[in-house]
Amino acid sequence: MTKEIEELYDRSLLEQLDFSSVQSSYNPKINIENPGNNLKIRPLRISDYEAGYMQLLSQLTEVGEYGKEKFIETFALMKHHKGMYYITVIEDVASGQVIGSGTLFIEQKFIHNCALRGRLEDIVVNSEYRGKQLGKLIVHTLTLLSKHLNCYKVSLDCKDSNRPFYESLGYKKEESNSNFMQIRFD
Amino acid sequence: MTKEIEELYDRSLLEQLDFSSVQSSYNPKINIENPGNNLKIRPLRISDYEAGYMQLLSQLTEVGEYGKEKFIETFALMKHHKGMYYITVIEDVASGQVIGSGTLFIEQKFIHNCALRGRLEDIVVNSEYRGKQLGKLIVHTLTLLSKHLNCYKVSLDCKDSNRPFYESLGYKKEESNSNFMQIRFD
Repeated sequence: MTKEIEELYDRSLLEQLDFSSVQSSYNPKINIENPGNNLKIRPLRISDYEAGYMQLLSQLTEVGEYGKEKFIETFALMKHHKGMYYITVIEDVASGQVIGSGTLFIEQKFIHNCALRGRLEDIVVNSEYRGKQLGKLIVHTLTLLSKHLNCYKVSLDCKDSNRPFYESLGYKKEESNSNFMQIRFD
Repeated sequence: MTKEIEELYDRSLLEQLDFSSVQSSYNPKINIENPGNNLKIRPLRISDYEAGYMQLLSQLTEVGEYGKEKFIETFALMKHHKGMYYITVIEDVASGQVIGSGTLFIEQKFIHNCALRGRLEDIVVNSEYRGKQLGKLIVHTLTLLSKHLNCYKVSLDCKDSNRPFYESLGYKKEESNSNFMQIRFD
């Protein structure tokens, strides 16, 4: 049986990250160990289904309505794909609610000596918690995690409005190599 | 034991794709079943390590030098992650060499009713085989495959020089939502 407290990945990975290279950009000085008053950063849990995770995602995009069974099934599938899905959340321990989330998604390659490539996906902070450097904390955490996991690079796609934010965190549009293109089927 | 002929994914998926929506854009009329004289399109095989697959990738980017053991290990890892890695190649049966390749990589989401998202990666055609519509054939095949697998969208990132090619195949840079950003660690 799957336990409610079960986490998507080994949380000791977060404890191993060296935050020192980015710490000076925070004022006040929050970090992975101390994300702020009553806040904790940790891997996604099954119990987050009832802790506002779906409502949080709905601030980002359309989530759809589905039950806990489907959530657990999807969680189990991601966990089965060990080493690929690193969904990381911030919990407000006072309310028991998840108030921030981001995904690091890993791809195995044959190129670059069978390297790993990271991608940041679905970064969101509850609108009531904005201005607390939490989006930045999530992105730094996932970026450091991708480096720790030996990714040769980490990338993301974003709207124009979010570009300055990601640039401030070290992400670059490379000259003549920064086109994001898509086809939507629905 | 892993068999040399073992393929990365079930090739019957390729037979299920409906090419009719794009067939009229080909002259001469090649398609998935008939990619051209002596050519076959199929999933990547372990034996492709000796069939020029690494040399083909090296026309795209730096591959590094590694032995067959590491190739098999990586192949096995991708295959273990069932439903995620769809590396598809074109073989010249006359020479026994792999002369084109592309990857469809699938991500499971919690958003959009636990949807799948597809990404095209590492598209390459041997320089001696260009002008035979094979790049287009690979991209169409992987795009149709992503739709067949029920992805809600499929995306890619590319250089400016490749943008017209992907636009001609239906890929779009969405207004104010087409930034590709990255951090390289090496």
